[in-house]
Amino acid sequence: MSDAVVLDLTADTITLLEQLVNIESVSKNEQRIADAVEAALRPLGHLDVSRHGNTVVARTSLGLPERVVIAGHLDTVPLNDNLPAVRDGDVLRGLGTCDMKGGVAVMLRLAATVPAPNRDLTFLFYEAEEIESEFNGLHLLSQSDPDLLQADFAILMEPSDAVIEAGCQGTLRVDVTTRGERAHSARSWMGVNAIHKAGAILDRLNAYEARRPVIDGLEYHEGLNAVFINGGVAGNVLPDVCTVQVNHRFAPDRSEAEAAAYVRDFFAGFEVELTDSAPGALPGLDRPAAKEFVEAVGGEVNPKFGWTDVARFSALGVPAVNFGPGDPMLAHKQEEYVPVEQVLRCESVLTTWLGA
Amino acid sequence: MSDAVVLDLTADTITLLEQLVNIESVSKNEQRIADAVEAALRPLGHLDVSRHGNTVVARTSLGLPERVVIAGHLDTVPLNDNLPAVRDGDVLRGLGTCDMKGGVAVMLRLAATVPAPNRDLTFLFYEAEEIESEFNGLHLLSQSDPDLLQADFAILMEPSDAVIEAGCQGTLRVDVTTRGERAHSARSWMGVNAIHKAGAILDRLNAYEARRPVIDGLEYHEGLNAVFINGGVAGNVLPDVCTVQVNHRFAPDRSEAEAAAYVRDFFAGFEVELTDSAPGALPGLDRPAAKEFVEAVGGEVNPKFGWTDVARFSALGVPAVNFGPGDPMLAHKQEEYVPVEQVLRCESVLTTWLGA
Repeated sequence: MSDAVVLDLTADTITLLEQLVNIESVSKNEQRIADAVEAALRPLGHLDVSRHGNTVVARTSLGLPERVVIAGHLDTVPLNDNLPAVRDGDVLRGLGTCDMKGGVAVMLRLAATVPAPNRDLTFLFYEAEEIESEFNGLHLLSQSDPDLLQADFAILMEPSDAVIEAGCQGTLRVDVTTRGERAHSARSWMGVNAIHKAGAILDRLNAYEARRPVIDGLEYHEGLNAVFINGGVAGNVLPDVCTVQVNHRFAPDRSEAEAAAYVRDFFAGFEVELTDSAPGALPGLDRPAAKEFVEAVGGEVNPKFGWTDVARFSALGVPAVNFGPGDPMLAHKQEEYVPVEQVLRCESVLTTWLGA
Repeated sequence: MSDAVVLDLTADTITLLEQLVNIESVSKNEQRIADAVEAALRPLGHLDVSRHGNTVVARTSLGLPERVVIAGHLDTVPLNDNLPAVRDGDVLRGLGTCDMKGGVAVMLRLAATVPAPNRDLTFLFYEAEEIESEFNGLHLLSQSDPDLLQADFAILMEPSDAVIEAGCQGTLRVDVTTRGERAHSARSWMGVNAIHKAGAILDRLNAYEARRPVIDGLEYHEGLNAVFINGGVAGNVLPDVCTVQVNHRFAPDRSEAEAAAYVRDFFAGFEVELTDSAPGALPGLDRPAAKEFVEAVGGEVNPKFGWTDVARFSALGVPAVNFGPGDPMLAHKQEEYVPVEQVLRCESVLTTWLGA
């Protein structure tokens, strides 16, 4: 096809990043970028390349004692009048610069420039991270080819300001519901107001004290928050149902089941329905590969509070960290950008760590 | 027009009622029924008949010391597969039988059969009671021809189980709002949860104690109820706004302004916006016409808790009561019906009270 893009992995990393950003790849439209990534990797003789939908896997098979996964997603959130990329002083602006083609550019450069790493490498360029889990390339690969995810350590190159964010907290949602009895509001003593009963739910939330466990030297910080509340039938009717949707963020020393039990106990006496759950990920900083990586980066490590795909590795027994260029607070913002210096620093740190 | 209906005011009241019910007259579609009512009243020489939109007014002018308004609306709520009328043992079923063509039938019979009443009479057959106030025939008449509403006493023939329900409570609505600051729910300490802050609003509502003032011997019963609550942005975001819509029903010894001040004071410290307000109506049972009417009915009087158009008379200085056939709890229900006995009893009581 005439619109196929040829990526030049010998170009400087920022030029490569700009090329990647200018291949529009909103979730479910990743074919062109996956084609370009696959075409750029195929000629590299030290890598075994395979294609799975619009996910591309490239592996060394050097028989080294340790294997590391380096992963990044190819898709972006929807366009918001923020393409093509614009070089603006020390930053590159545009959709996907921060989340997360900066990381993808670094991965491609490592694949091209480190043909003899000190650890075996598995590069995962995957599709559909920004949408429902069922389409997520990592999820699909964990179902179809779980062996390809096996490693001693994984680095997810999501934006983390080029600082290691280790592990991640889990997340679950429950609907906490109160029930009453409808009545005309002019004769309210004939009914039971379900919204008024929800006051006791909010009282408990207001009394909540967050657990802040320290794991591998990192202080996590849990949370329990109403994210929605809804009740009401009509302006003259006592409502018979009120539902509070509560989001619990839990530190990775608790399993999903333990966290769900905690929330059920917290709301004892109320109707509680679990609607959504994803496990946390332990930081795993006690593993040798992780320790050496932390040293290579300079020793700074923060806990990851939000949920990320590192949990998918953790679920497979692979410790994983987030480490990538870009401010995570800029992800999904129209004005997202990535500092050139962070992209180059991530590349440099990883190149050094991989012994090149 | 060939579909014009001719009402026979000399027929028995239930036959007349059935005729009225079978003229479909959902709000804003009252022309046929208003035409039929006007045509039936015009030949009655003791009445001055005037037409105002689809509202029909018929008055005696006998120069008597006292004037009484008897009022009823011609419209119904929407069809719900409940026409035509069905005679079922001791009741008549169908749309409008209860709310409130039973009362309208009684009014038409009084107009025809009491040509020399002991009080001057003003019959008001009005349009659009079931919809927004701006279309309400009584409201329009109070603006265009307020003199036509003047009287010493008014009887609104809304369903009240053929018992006097005196006055009515007022109603107002406020939005009580809390504000916070958005943050990602994984870093909830960075924000302020507006839903959690609404717990204090519900706590106050739960501590509310209803005032039950006795007025003219009738115990009213106020109410303060959340009728809606809404808050939430996304499943992973701390909400920055939560709004509780509160409906206050207040006894008629308080003005709208007093009731609004009470609610603002009750929610002191919160953002309170008044969105809707309608005054109550004092029972006015101290007036001679009202006293005699209560005696004629047999002495039983209940307070009216819900708001009705009696408040429009009260606002004009005319004491008013609700008195009509049918169970008010059946109004707006698909299965509405009216007991024949109640229709006939209302007619009989009023005929006697008017000295015929």
